[in-house]
Amino acid sequence: MQPAPTRAGLAVLPTRMRALVKTAPAPGFEIVEVAVPSPGRGEVLVRVAAGGICGTDLHIFRWDAWARSRVRPPRTIGHEFCGTVAAVGEGVVEVAVGDRVAGESHVVCGWCPRCRHGQAHICDRLEIIGVDRDGAFAEYVVMPARNAWRLDPAIRTEIGAIMDPLGNAVHTALATDITTRTVAITGCGPIGLMAIPVSRAAGAGLVIATDVRPGRLALARGLGADVVIDASAEPAAERIQELTGGGADVVLEMSGHPAGIRDALRAVRSGGWVGLLGLPSAPVELDLADQVIFKAVRLEGIFGRRLWQTWEQMTTLLRRGLDVAPVITHRLPLERFEEAFALLEAGGAGKVILTIEP
Amino acid sequence: MQPAPTRAGLAVLPTRMRALVKTAPAPGFEIVEVAVPSPGRGEVLVRVAAGGICGTDLHIFRWDAWARSRVRPPRTIGHEFCGTVAAVGEGVVEVAVGDRVAGESHVVCGWCPRCRHGQAHICDRLEIIGVDRDGAFAEYVVMPARNAWRLDPAIRTEIGAIMDPLGNAVHTALATDITTRTVAITGCGPIGLMAIPVSRAAGAGLVIATDVRPGRLALARGLGADVVIDASAEPAAERIQELTGGGADVVLEMSGHPAGIRDALRAVRSGGWVGLLGLPSAPVELDLADQVIFKAVRLEGIFGRRLWQTWEQMTTLLRRGLDVAPVITHRLPLERFEEAFALLEAGGAGKVILTIEP
Amino acid sequence: MQPAPTRAGLAVLPTRMRALVKTAPAPGFEIVEVAVPSPGRGEVLVRVAAGGICGTDLHIFRWDAWARSRVRPPRTIGHEFCGTVAAVGEGVVEVAVGDRVAGESHVVCGWCPRCRHGQAHICDRLEIIGVDRDGAFAEYVVMPARNAWRLDPAIRTEIGAIMDPLGNAVHTALATDITTRTVAITGCGPIGLMAIPVSRAAGAGLVIATDVRPGRLALARGLGADVVIDASAEPAAERIQELTGGGADVVLEMSGHPAGIRDALRAVRSGGWVGLLGLPSAPVELDLADQVIFKAVRLEGIFGRRLWQTWEQMTTLLRRGLDVAPVITHRLPLERFEEAFALLEAGGAGKVILTIEP
Amino acid sequence: MQPAPTRAGLAVLPTRMRALVKTAPAPGFEIVEVAVPSPGRGEVLVRVAAGGICGTDLHIFRWDAWARSRVRPPRTIGHEFCGTVAAVGEGVVEVAVGDRVAGESHVVCGWCPRCRHGQAHICDRLEIIGVDRDGAFAEYVVMPARNAWRLDPAIRTEIGAIMDPLGNAVHTALATDITTRTVAITGCGPIGLMAIPVSRAAGAGLVIATDVRPGRLALARGLGADVVIDASAEPAAERIQELTGGGADVVLEMSGHPAGIRDALRAVRSGGWVGLLGLPSAPVELDLADQVIFKAVRLEGIFGRRLWQTWEQMTTLLRRGLDVAPVITHRLPLERFEEAFALLEAGGAGKVILTIEP
Repeated sequence: MQPAPTRAGLAVLPTRMRALVKTAPAPGFEIVEVAVPSPGRGEVLVRVAAGGICGTDLHIFRWDAWARSRVRPPRTIGHEFCGTVAAVGEGVVEVAVGDRVAGESHVVCGWCPRCRHGQAHICDRLEIIGVDRDGAFAEYVVMPARNAWRLDPAIRTEIGAIMDPLGNAVHTALATDITTRTVAITGCGPIGLMAIPVSRAAGAGLVIATDVRPGRLALARGLGADVVIDASAEPAAERIQELTGGGADVVLEMSGHPAGIRDALRAVRSGGWVGLLGLPSAPVELDLADQVIFKAVRLEGIFGRRLWQTWEQMTTLLRRGLDVAPVITHRLPLERFEEAFALLEAGGAGKVILTIEP
Repeated sequence: MQPAPTRAGLAVLPTRMRALVKTAPAPGFEIVEVAVPSPGRGEVLVRVAAGGICGTDLHIFRWDAWARSRVRPPRTIGHEFCGTVAAVGEGVVEVAVGDRVAGESHVVCGWCPRCRHGQAHICDRLEIIGVDRDGAFAEYVVMPARNAWRLDPAIRTEIGAIMDPLGNAVHTALATDITTRTVAITGCGPIGLMAIPVSRAAGAGLVIATDVRPGRLALARGLGADVVIDASAEPAAERIQELTGGGADVVLEMSGHPAGIRDALRAVRSGGWVGLLGLPSAPVELDLADQVIFKAVRLEGIFGRRLWQTWEQMTTLLRRGLDVAPVITHRLPLERFEEAFALLEAGGAGKVILTIEP
Repeated sequence: MQPAPTRAGLAVLPTRMRALVKTAPAPGFEIVEVAVPSPGRGEVLVRVAAGGICGTDLHIFRWDAWARSRVRPPRTIGHEFCGTVAAVGEGVVEVAVGDRVAGESHVVCGWCPRCRHGQAHICDRLEIIGVDRDGAFAEYVVMPARNAWRLDPAIRTEIGAIMDPLGNAVHTALATDITTRTVAITGCGPIGLMAIPVSRAAGAGLVIATDVRPGRLALARGLGADVVIDASAEPAAERIQELTGGGADVVLEMSGHPAGIRDALRAVRSGGWVGLLGLPSAPVELDLADQVIFKAVRLEGIFGRRLWQTWEQMTTLLRRGLDVAPVITHRLPLERFEEAFALLEAGGAGKVILTIEP
Repeated sequence: MQPAPTRAGLAVLPTRMRALVKTAPAPGFEIVEVAVPSPGRGEVLVRVAAGGICGTDLHIFRWDAWARSRVRPPRTIGHEFCGTVAAVGEGVVEVAVGDRVAGESHVVCGWCPRCRHGQAHICDRLEIIGVDRDGAFAEYVVMPARNAWRLDPAIRTEIGAIMDPLGNAVHTALATDITTRTVAITGCGPIGLMAIPVSRAAGAGLVIATDVRPGRLALARGLGADVVIDASAEPAAERIQELTGGGADVVLEMSGHPAGIRDALRAVRSGGWVGLLGLPSAPVELDLADQVIFKAVRLEGIFGRRLWQTWEQMTTLLRRGLDVAPVITHRLPLERFEEAFALLEAGGAGKVILTIEP
């Protein structure tokens, strides 16, 4: 399947490729050989270099209730990735063959009310790559040209592969103005971890991170948190109140756990702001009177990334020296995907990268 | 206790007065004779003309858990009121003897972090008139001069008596820009009802109101709601979704009921805004993933009124013709307070006014 | 050139049509017969019913310096219009044949930095219909499907023909929150006039309009201005200061005249906001220190209309009863264009409509 | 005049002191002996340690048109300063004797419309220390307690002495969100220079500084500007356009020169923001059509500092390591004031500090 070099420096595209596929409505994935897709009008074909595994992929792997309700096998998965444009469809002006690109996983319609209002990230007809259409844990992937963000030369391929989740972190941290503000981050998964150096780069006055796993707290400290709190060992909200003299100006809720969400509300000061990114798996009981209404707190649900402001912000932050590499703790070839998912199941890993070799 | 006119046109102040007092830590109130208070530095003495009964007064009347934890008898109650400045303390420049004034119930410190940031309505050292200090269901009340808002001549005394709760309605409705937006109001107590003509005056594109009591829905229609929904008879959120083509741009949650709050979240569109004013008496279970995070909804806890922007906004709205008089359904002299509280207990009343005659 | 009805209720399209064309680099226009254009991919062909004459058209008519630098004859002019979709190109999903539509004159690229940021109205590759590409003072016009805004049935054709300039008025008036605010409008051309009822609909606390022509001031009064000021007879800024107790909260500068712009700055209060829409023909000398910096005033240049929020706002306002019809003072068939332009030259007209009959 | 220590550790206050005074309506100042003032209700007496000379002081020194119209001799001048609270008047709760404090020069009324709206920095009854009331180039100065901002122990006295102008820089740079944005600063006087590290600390994507004096450009580079442009040697606006790919997102106008202001407008991108702080001495001719309206640019007049958010922001920035010390180029005792003003007249100095020794 090695493409042969051509005179023009471009490759002759192969017709078959390896892909990581949910082949049947059951747990697990398989590597299978499938046809290389063709880009339609406004689409591009990207030769994938590396991908990041997301919690969403783990849900599909396990084939839990959410996955069963949403994903229709056979489906190639993977939506965090980086690669090179291998071919372009008709009418593509945004990128060209040979461009290094990172993938935006949200495919949007461009004309629903939300798209018309500059809020395409919550498009009414949203499709997610690797969930609702074939994804990027494969040698090639097809997507709209606009979803292939041209990478600045300063950005390494491996970082390009995690710009989709970095975009979640940047969108959350920069959804309110945090310069000089105290910021608490509840939950140090990869997105929470990346929010730490992003907050530092934006001039936060103090960055506090909480989690319940010592390994993640160590990563948090390494990524620049001023204070880390083990929420299993001490009352996190009370500690944040003390450290900030009455509550954090801004809380970024990245855990999705009921305890983390309640800590977020108790940790924020009167008049403060809470960004909710972590997805709880069930309804959560909240003390709205004391923690939201009397305190005049603002909560904001955060989904995806701003199209395309967040991509520009990420590019600038990375060019300016933002270092999120420590969040990547493992790199494995696509073929060792079982091992990669086992690492995530075990809960000790940061971001796990799959490399897709020709 | 009738003050005698004096040469300067001012009254000789009496030394004793009638007041509605929580005399003991038990349900009920009593009318007792107490000393007329003296205004200290920066304070004014107001001759009260009329007061509005608030849900908070009912909590104190019933002596429920919240009241027991907060109020220390003996305490004169009442915090919605209107009257005339009868005397001023040293250093008062804001109002003068003879000015008609309405009361702002929140007494603020002026120098805590929130006060310093222009958010005095959530002052760290907040005291509420009629709760934490003696109130206005009495012939006279003392308060800081700034809490006595000079009434525009166009505003009738009875409307002046309910500017404190009208301020809640205005603060909530104008906390986000609602011009041309679809607005749903969940809960038609007096504040929810007043939010209807306020939303109309601000140019809302559609105003929908929900409640479970037919009497309140009739008032809502009379106050200008385009559509009223009986949430006990039809699924309110689904109806709002239909009427607005996918969800209201803005929801004003005025019920404080778990069902109302959940309707509010289900009724708001993706990217919409929910103002939370109604106070739930216990924690509320919310589907944050589907109703807040995936929808990128913003929630904002609303407390009190902006000091002093809301007062200026109210003045302008009332001068421009805002009519909230229909929300006043009963007027009784102070002496018939038992009857007034019974009306509120029965749940059929709108706003009940107590008149305080000399 | 009357199209014949067909079985499907649609018309067989003619191949030739009348159009108002700048035929040569010199003053004036001519009605000539030209080919009916064909809609390309993503485009629509609109059968024009009526058009509004804009100041821009007058510049092209006169062939002034700006027109000479921008317009390349032969060019069909006209960019304010309303009609019916007669044919659609490939890939069009936004509208269908038979839809009544109003035209957005700004054709945008969709992928420059401004378009990517939800600010398409200042697209880097902006083309204006009737200026940079053939326009709508013709029987038919071709444009991107998105520029053909489907008209709500409640909106009359003649109002549809002036939604482009109404959009300027709405964009300016709603660019800041004006509910309960005092608003002064300097300059009562058609856009300034339409801003009056828009400001009223949004709940402005007071609406003051200034101009130097008695006819326009009469129109302003008829459209709902609380106060009109003849700036040729009295000092407008001082009068506005008096009426507002220290300056208007918001000033909408619609004149483009140096005197009007200076009045706008002197009339706005400290901390207030000025929207600049009127286009001065030369640099203007401003007292920035006293009128902008010491007063901490915000100025905002306003161009075009927000794509597509302004169109939704207009639709809602018109459905809610916004009446801008009085601004239309003359209606003439296309053939009488010389008369129409003479009316505008004379300065006494409001909006002049050209009707395009089959 | 050395105060004698007392048992309580406090000093016995002297009755006479040295002060730098505009003694007569003519150019120059004199050091004279005057009475030590007494703090009234709500006021404090501060023992001054050091002061910074501002351009305003130079205007008063020269006795130019502005100074003649505003200042009434005899007047002690100086409004940038740092010291220790020596005595407090009745009712002071904000600071205590012995506290190190920096001075906010704007004395505000607290109850005008602007003060009531959280915009006290543009108070209608503003008085400036050292201009409208006696100032701080003296051994002692009296001012409202709130104008004495308690210094964080991490802040050196000399930096405390320039927090008033640092506050101008912080207020301007943080008046819009600059994180990841390109920022151009036109004019590298002390405030422009301090805006450079402030912009860097807030995560600006690129910081460009312009001036016409090589010494200031060297300081700008030392303070962290990514690019410096000598506007006397190259076309500054064009260079900024090139470096930013179409214009800076944000321009901070710090020069007050017509050329600098015009460069600011030409350098900002479409949809960008310009903060105007530098005070032009005469009206300035601006191309509003091309540079503001067609570009939909926002301009904001910046005056003073936000009370009191800017002081908190400064404190956080300085604690986080913001280094503005390089802007201080000279330190002289009060007695050598003639020399200090000569340095400023010569134009080569950064900030000049006067030390006030007991």
